[in-house]
Amino acid sequence: MQFYQQGFHPGDPRITDPADRVIAPPLKHSLPSKVDVMIVGCGPAGLNLAAQLSKFASISTCIVEQKDDRLLVGQADGIACRTMEMFEAYDFADQIKQEAYWVNETAFWKPDTEQPQKISLSSKIQDVEDDLSEMPHVIINQARVHDAFLDVMRHGPRKIVPHYSRQLLNLEVDQATTDYPVTLTFERLDSQHLGVIEKVKAKYVVGCDGARSTVRKSIGRELIGDSINQGWGVMDVLAVTDFPDIRLKSAIHSSNEGNMLIIPREGGYMVRLYIELDKLKSNERLSKKNITTNYLIAAANRILYPYTIDVKEIAWWSVYEIGQRLTTAFDDAEEGKLPHVFLAGDACHTHSPKAGQGLNTSVNDTWNLGWKLAHVLTGRAKPELLQSYSFERQTVAQQLIDFDREFSKMFSAKPKSVTNPEGVDPADFQKYFVQFGRFTAGTAIHYPPSDLVSTGQHQNLATGQSIGMRFHSAKVTRLADAKPVHLAHSMKADGRWHILAFAGQQDFMNDTCQVNKLCEFLQNDPSSPTQYFTPKSADIDAVINLQAVFQTHHREVEVAHIHPLLQPPKGRYGLKDYEKVYSAICEENSFYDKRGIDKRDGCIIIVRPDQYVAEILPLSDHSGLTNFFKRVFIQST
Amino acid sequence: MQFYQQGFHPGDPRITDPADRVIAPPLKHSLPSKVDVMIVGCGPAGLNLAAQLSKFASISTCIVEQKDDRLLVGQADGIACRTMEMFEAYDFADQIKQEAYWVNETAFWKPDTEQPQKISLSSKIQDVEDDLSEMPHVIINQARVHDAFLDVMRHGPRKIVPHYSRQLLNLEVDQATTDYPVTLTFERLDSQHLGVIEKVKAKYVVGCDGARSTVRKSIGRELIGDSINQGWGVMDVLAVTDFPDIRLKSAIHSSNEGNMLIIPREGGYMVRLYIELDKLKSNERLSKKNITTNYLIAAANRILYPYTIDVKEIAWWSVYEIGQRLTTAFDDAEEGKLPHVFLAGDACHTHSPKAGQGLNTSVNDTWNLGWKLAHVLTGRAKPELLQSYSFERQTVAQQLIDFDREFSKMFSAKPKSVTNPEGVDPADFQKYFVQFGRFTAGTAIHYPPSDLVSTGQHQNLATGQSIGMRFHSAKVTRLADAKPVHLAHSMKADGRWHILAFAGQQDFMNDTCQVNKLCEFLQNDPSSPTQYFTPKSADIDAVINLQAVFQTHHREVEVAHIHPLLQPPKGRYGLKDYEKVYSAICEENSFYDKRGIDKRDGCIIIVRPDQYVAEILPLSDHSGLTNFFKRVFIQST
Ligand SMILES: Cc1cc2nc3c(=O)[nH]c(=O)nc-3n(C[C@H](O)[C@H](O)[C@H](O)COP(=O)(O)OP(=O)(O)OC[C@H]3O[C@@H](n4cnc5c(N)ncnc54)[C@H](O)[C@@H]3O)c2cc1C
Ligand SMILES: Cc1cc2nc3c(=O)[nH]c(=O)nc-3n(C[C@H](O)[C@H](O)[C@H](O)COP(=O)(O)OP(=O)(O)OC[C@H]3O[C@@H](n4cnc5c(N)ncnc54)[C@H](O)[C@@H]3O)c2cc1C
Repeated sequence: MQFYQQGFHPGDPRITDPADRVIAPPLKHSLPSKVDVMIVGCGPAGLNLAAQLSKFASISTCIVEQKDDRLLVGQADGIACRTMEMFEAYDFADQIKQEAYWVNETAFWKPDTEQPQKISLSSKIQDVEDDLSEMPHVIINQARVHDAFLDVMRHGPRKIVPHYSRQLLNLEVDQATTDYPVTLTFERLDSQHLGVIEKVKAKYVVGCDGARSTVRKSIGRELIGDSINQGWGVMDVLAVTDFPDIRLKSAIHSSNEGNMLIIPREGGYMVRLYIELDKLKSNERLSKKNITTNYLIAAANRILYPYTIDVKEIAWWSVYEIGQRLTTAFDDAEEGKLPHVFLAGDACHTHSPKAGQGLNTSVNDTWNLGWKLAHVLTGRAKPELLQSYSFERQTVAQQLIDFDREFSKMFSAKPKSVTNPEGVDPADFQKYFVQFGRFTAGTAIHYPPSDLVSTGQHQNLATGQSIGMRFHSAKVTRLADAKPVHLAHSMKADGRWHILAFAGQQDFMNDTCQVNKLCEFLQNDPSSPTQYFTPKSADIDAVINLQAVFQTHHREVEVAHIHPLLQPPKGRYGLKDYEKVYSAICEENSFYDKRGIDKRDGCIIIVRPDQYVAEILPLSDHSGLTNFFKRVFIQST
Repeated sequence: MQFYQQGFHPGDPRITDPADRVIAPPLKHSLPSKVDVMIVGCGPAGLNLAAQLSKFASISTCIVEQKDDRLLVGQADGIACRTMEMFEAYDFADQIKQEAYWVNETAFWKPDTEQPQKISLSSKIQDVEDDLSEMPHVIINQARVHDAFLDVMRHGPRKIVPHYSRQLLNLEVDQATTDYPVTLTFERLDSQHLGVIEKVKAKYVVGCDGARSTVRKSIGRELIGDSINQGWGVMDVLAVTDFPDIRLKSAIHSSNEGNMLIIPREGGYMVRLYIELDKLKSNERLSKKNITTNYLIAAANRILYPYTIDVKEIAWWSVYEIGQRLTTAFDDAEEGKLPHVFLAGDACHTHSPKAGQGLNTSVNDTWNLGWKLAHVLTGRAKPELLQSYSFERQTVAQQLIDFDREFSKMFSAKPKSVTNPEGVDPADFQKYFVQFGRFTAGTAIHYPPSDLVSTGQHQNLATGQSIGMRFHSAKVTRLADAKPVHLAHSMKADGRWHILAFAGQQDFMNDTCQVNKLCEFLQNDPSSPTQYFTPKSADIDAVINLQAVFQTHHREVEVAHIHPLLQPPKGRYGLKDYEKVYSAICEENSFYDKRGIDKRDGCIIIVRPDQYVAEILPLSDHSGLTNFFKRVFIQST
């Protein structure tokens, strides 16, 4: 899709008239007096959490934002592969894929060896390594991601719309109350209700209120880290240039004029320029007063020399300064005290924009928290489950900060030269860049062992699916309709766990078939996790979704032999669900080969609602299954 | 996506609450007194035409419908590959792909050889042959296709919303008037305006008013053909069955109980059953009075024996009876008289539903007509161009009717057996089915030579792109951003022609490079079609879109050498369009190998706005280019 040719306008570019892209803000209703979950802040962290919770009709969620409308332009724009996989679970990845710029390659430009005042192309590398993810790395206005979340929220089983023009003043947790222990105080900012104070009681509060988080301050956590902020001039522009790689992500090191990052943007014409500014002490502030767009454009032209860039329109710009900081915990839990207030996104960790981690890490925070809150609030799990959020995400954020710091240092350092032997060798930079591709893609996240992630005794049965990491998708053929599908795309943002049974060498569904035996166990044994943890009134796959993969070609199986548990009756009519059985063979490749599944013995892979591999077990280890889920769930009624 | 599990509800299934799927009908404005184009009927033919015309801000279009709102359920559901390619040109193919059922395989069931009262599986075949199209053959409620067109219309440069509750009473063509020669008379059917008569004058009228077309009658055309109607009981149901292939398209021949076609539907649960009823004389009518749903369900169970089907909910059903008929011309033109009134879709040809041609042929009619009307109304071409519509589409419709008749006969015939030696051998049926796969996919359409389709002197330069047939896409790598893209997806529903320059063996854009020379010619020669036919005020690619494909790997070209005409300045800022140059090498395949492009000499392929190949020329045949376009366009001012 090509758009913004005649100028930038916010909203859905599929709509020609910019005026029709405006979405009417929701009515200015009062806040409810009591809610299950109060989310503070409509950034990507908050909206993702609201989108996730909107999938549960029984949970009451309220999301507030101090600004008076949805975000229209600016802030982050890089969407990592892993984040796209998450969008797929919400069914909007296709829309983003269509609209966004795809990062396929990165170009590295450096001072020319002969004439170092000029830049010249150093090399180009593939941006995402082959088969790292089925999703591309894309670039799109953060506001469009917000729009997609807002759509999911509006359309959910539980409809959620934000309350705008609400500023959180403070919150208090009353440890004595067990019911709605948190009380929040908001001030209304819209002219019709200016200064009106509202109080809301909540079971849980999630502070998604950004780097200057009020929620963080209220619970006494502090961002710790660098005392140095890195300043960046950021501009989204429509421009005419003779720089050849303007439609590639380009990292440009000039010899004396500083560094710049070019990020091509959606629509084929717009481009983002990140121009490095000086380092600042943490209490120093750059501002739009000191730094003008003319200053930035001139800097860009100096860095690009001998090329020029003629900026025709600035869609958005900012002076963005940020250090690498992190809170010690992502919640208000203390020894012997369960958490009631959580922090997510920039409220508990901040990143330099270069590695594009701000938005991606933020949404992955609440992707981790959402299903856990839903488990507790729907009575499936004990509140103790919520302790795992800070445990898992704080660890991961620390790793990211460490990586980011290294990366930023390298990026900002001068290139090595005769006059600057201490500088960074561009070749080193590039090597580092490749090595950390998986980090930036978001696929390197590895949660440590806990009740939710096993220690990996049977990792050998599925060498390509690391316990603690996200389930790595590949294509399989769905038996019932012969459709080639990505196995991970069967795992939606619905809070369900997944048991994937990979068949070994036994015949399809005959008496010795271990998948058949597993089905028998799950269906008939009262201790089976599906029997034990699924509410009587719910579909049998409402809590745990069993699926099976066979090594047989899809034409060679006898569909009639499929165990009923793999075609379970659903809903009020008892309609059969036919989308649970697959052949590993798809487009002449086997899932087993691609992902290292043991062909002789097969295995069970337990996948969490957030698509992380929790456990790998032998197909016959029925008690292993039971024991695993006993650590997660409480018995249902 | 899975949906309709708890029951069918019309509208966008991404929205959980069915009440939120309702789209407010447009305000009941009066009809305009004068319009460029009046479209009668909001079926797929009319809506596609309106969607196409909405791309032109200067054309005034009015579309009316006698019903009081958009279609919600029922009618056709099969979307051929070629139709999906067209949807891609409107940018909504992805949405349909996500929502629809994909037909990957067809199962054939026949009377069991041992126990002929039972049916048994005869064979399964791949539904669409490999590489026939980059698009799948899908099944989705016709109403959802309407919704997609309505979105395009609403969001176009020229916004169009239907006028509902308007019945065309008659129309008159005044040959003496050249300005707005057609006068239409409508009666309002809504209670607020019941019986109010409105008159509209139009330059052109398109009758998309279905099989009982008033427009057709007004211009004295008649549907001619079969005097026999085939009756079908059609039901969209949510049902529980033990029939194993319920999620495959299945053609079922029973020995004595009749035939049935199973079409799995979107959402994973719904299924359409086509149950064959008796043949009827053309003046005989079946009706819902004689045929009940119970009758149809009982018939389905008899045909499926030994399997059963338990229908839980009927989303829609109908007794659908239709013959294979066609008008002699698709317009009101006569010797020495140019056309002003056109017919499209069921108004001029009807089909049995089995080959799924009703909707697909209808939208392809107006896909052919839309750009021609736009050419004439924007002053690019003479009104004579409009004569080609009936010429091209009537020919094609006749071919389809012939095919359809054969196919239906085979389908309805009893299977061959000892007691019925005259019957159809299921193996023959299946062979026929395969052979005509290209027909049903819509990719076999071949327009005869005319000013718009050359006689094919240079067909040998691109053996895989037949002149007169749709441009057959394959992937290429876009140079500027290294993105693998389908070449045909650069050709949107915007009325532009395309010159695709495929480079021969010369070096990339050097002096001997014929693509370079072509660019020089097009840019500098006053007789070049781009200079001659593009309005001075418009972008250089506004009328004819030049693109180039090279055989070099995308990393091996010097982007700076690309001719400026292939990165032309666009819009008010003169922003460069970087999406016109490709490497033929993508994912280790070459477009040249896949589509038989001459590797030594390359070639020029001229593609029409509707994606049909108009001409193939040697790269150096500049005057050939000029001559071709002189037959299409009039010189611009
Ligand atoms: C001006 C700006 C420019 C940025 N530029 C870039 C960039 O160029 N590249 C990049 O990668 N990242 C950039 N980021 C960072 C990126 O946008 C964040 O990492 C990402 O948005 C984090 O998401 P979040 O949901 O945690 O917080 P945010 O997106 O910051 O959302 C927090 C929300 O909470 C609201 N809020 C705050 N306090 C209150 C309160 N007391 N009451 C009610 N609401 C409150 C805020 O208004 C805001 O909408 C930028 C951020 C900002 C703010
Ligand atoms: C009841 C029904 C069931 C069908 N079932 C199947 C099926 O099972 N399988 C299949 O493949 N195809 C089926 N079809 C055929 C398929 O829907 C058509 O081939 C396809 O819709 C043709 O599109 P069209 O735009 O030419 O005409 P239509 O979709 O018929 O649209 C014509 C429109 O014009 C309107 N109209 C008619 N006269 C006037 C007037 N005087 N003034 C104003 N408006 C008027 C009508 O209300 C209608 O909305 C069915 C059609 C119908 C009507």
